[in-house]
Amino acid sequence: MKRLASGWKVSGIAVGFVPTMGYLHAGHISLVHNARQRVGSKGQVVVSIYVNPTQFGPTEDLAKYPRDLAHDKKLCREAGVDVLFVPSNAQMYPEGYSTYVIEEHLSQAMEGASRPTHFRGVTTVVSKLFNLVLPDVAVFGAKDFQQAAIIQRMTRDLNFPVKVVVAPTVREPDGLALSSRNKYLSPIQREQAVILRQSLQHARNAVAGGPVQATRLLDEVGKRIATASEARLDYVEFFNPKTLEPATVVKRGTQMALAVFLGKTRLIDNATL
Amino acid sequence: MKRLASGWKVSGIAVGFVPTMGYLHAGHISLVHNARQRVGSKGQVVVSIYVNPTQFGPTEDLAKYPRDLAHDKKLCREAGVDVLFVPSNAQMYPEGYSTYVIEEHLSQAMEGASRPTHFRGVTTVVSKLFNLVLPDVAVFGAKDFQQAAIIQRMTRDLNFPVKVVVAPTVREPDGLALSSRNKYLSPIQREQAVILRQSLQHARNAVAGGPVQATRLLDEVGKRIATASEARLDYVEFFNPKTLEPATVVKRGTQMALAVFLGKTRLIDNATL
Repeated sequence: MKRLASGWKVSGIAVGFVPTMGYLHAGHISLVHNARQRVGSKGQVVVSIYVNPTQFGPTEDLAKYPRDLAHDKKLCREAGVDVLFVPSNAQMYPEGYSTYVIEEHLSQAMEGASRPTHFRGVTTVVSKLFNLVLPDVAVFGAKDFQQAAIIQRMTRDLNFPVKVVVAPTVREPDGLALSSRNKYLSPIQREQAVILRQSLQHARNAVAGGPVQATRLLDEVGKRIATASEARLDYVEFFNPKTLEPATVVKRGTQMALAVFLGKTRLIDNATL
Repeated sequence: MKRLASGWKVSGIAVGFVPTMGYLHAGHISLVHNARQRVGSKGQVVVSIYVNPTQFGPTEDLAKYPRDLAHDKKLCREAGVDVLFVPSNAQMYPEGYSTYVIEEHLSQAMEGASRPTHFRGVTTVVSKLFNLVLPDVAVFGAKDFQQAAIIQRMTRDLNFPVKVVVAPTVREPDGLALSSRNKYLSPIQREQAVILRQSLQHARNAVAGGPVQATRLLDEVGKRIATASEARLDYVEFFNPKTLEPATVVKRGTQMALAVFLGKTRLIDNATL
């Protein structure tokens, strides 16, 4: 990968990069198309597949995170990916590994509060991948809104020569955001998973008429989720989409994010209201 | 700097980099010559001067750290430096800055124990400078032995496409290692500062005849330093130069490092015994 990347640099070839954990779906492929559009037909599009252990907590689903490299390869070929980069743990975290990249502000709330070491793993592995792939453009999905904000901040703060693009979430016909973790859902959980999108829609409708207290919306969304037998709310947050500062009054343009367990499967979603 | 660096990459021009805090002396200039030798006359040699606030503790000498940009420019010109890069604090740590690079193992002892946030500042600023200058080779001085080890580890761990070179310490005729902080010393402190080098020599002689207990050497060095009226020992450590693991038995090849206050000025030195 290093040899390819430095060769492209010297040849002035533009590189678009989509880092993933594999088990690819149409959401990932939309990122690939986005990258291709940005680098053109003469550019190189790289997809990495790496289930990064440092972004999983000790009780999380690292071991059983879904993997299907053969299918991933097929999708990448069909989507016109030039290089599929699949490093091993021994290559990424060799003996004596001891360096981490941390973002200390945007990473505190929401996913950071629910998953304390998660973002440190994300910023570390993305830094490593940026240095290995040397992309001009890297494309991330908007479903992981906080992740995208942190990676943009990290890229600016550490002066990575990379343009970070955040591309729209791809959804099932009923509104469920595509996620590799959707495959964990039982049929009844899958049916109830639409509650995330419905909660976002509910809030959007609520603020269409004017500003609303966050506490009131939290209460309404909580009650709505409580009606789904398999669902358990982890968090709902309203915040400024630029600074991630919490909003006490919610209005058009406020960002809403939520995490909901369906059985043991934790799903996230977000929207600009 | 970014524009220059990316232009060099596309043109296949090799870049050698010497990051400094300015107030340059013959030690820095030896690093410049080292960089030039590695990139050749067609390469570009970049020196950065940046007194990085994040590597100074709250009670340390940030505000009074010596500065003389006019003299630094003159020395760089004479040494054939191609680009002198002098970023400002507002450029390096803009509003809302929140990302840090940390090394968690090698940075715990010695300088890390005496200066708890020091290495986090060093690894952060060096990461930023690597991303801005995009060097092929970066040259660091061996006087800051632990710093060099940490930067080598960080470069490997984060996969920076940079070759890190550690170049020998340059010394005054009496053996004092060159340092910008030497200018703080009063004439009597300057005279007594030779105690650092003498301590290293004492240990080297002691192990020439065979292995010695670290405790015995610590005791001897401590007593020797106590004889200098202006000197106060901060630490002496014996360790494996690769892993920085402490050595209880000291022998040929063991690394020794020490920090000594002369009045309020803290000096460091080290040697392979």
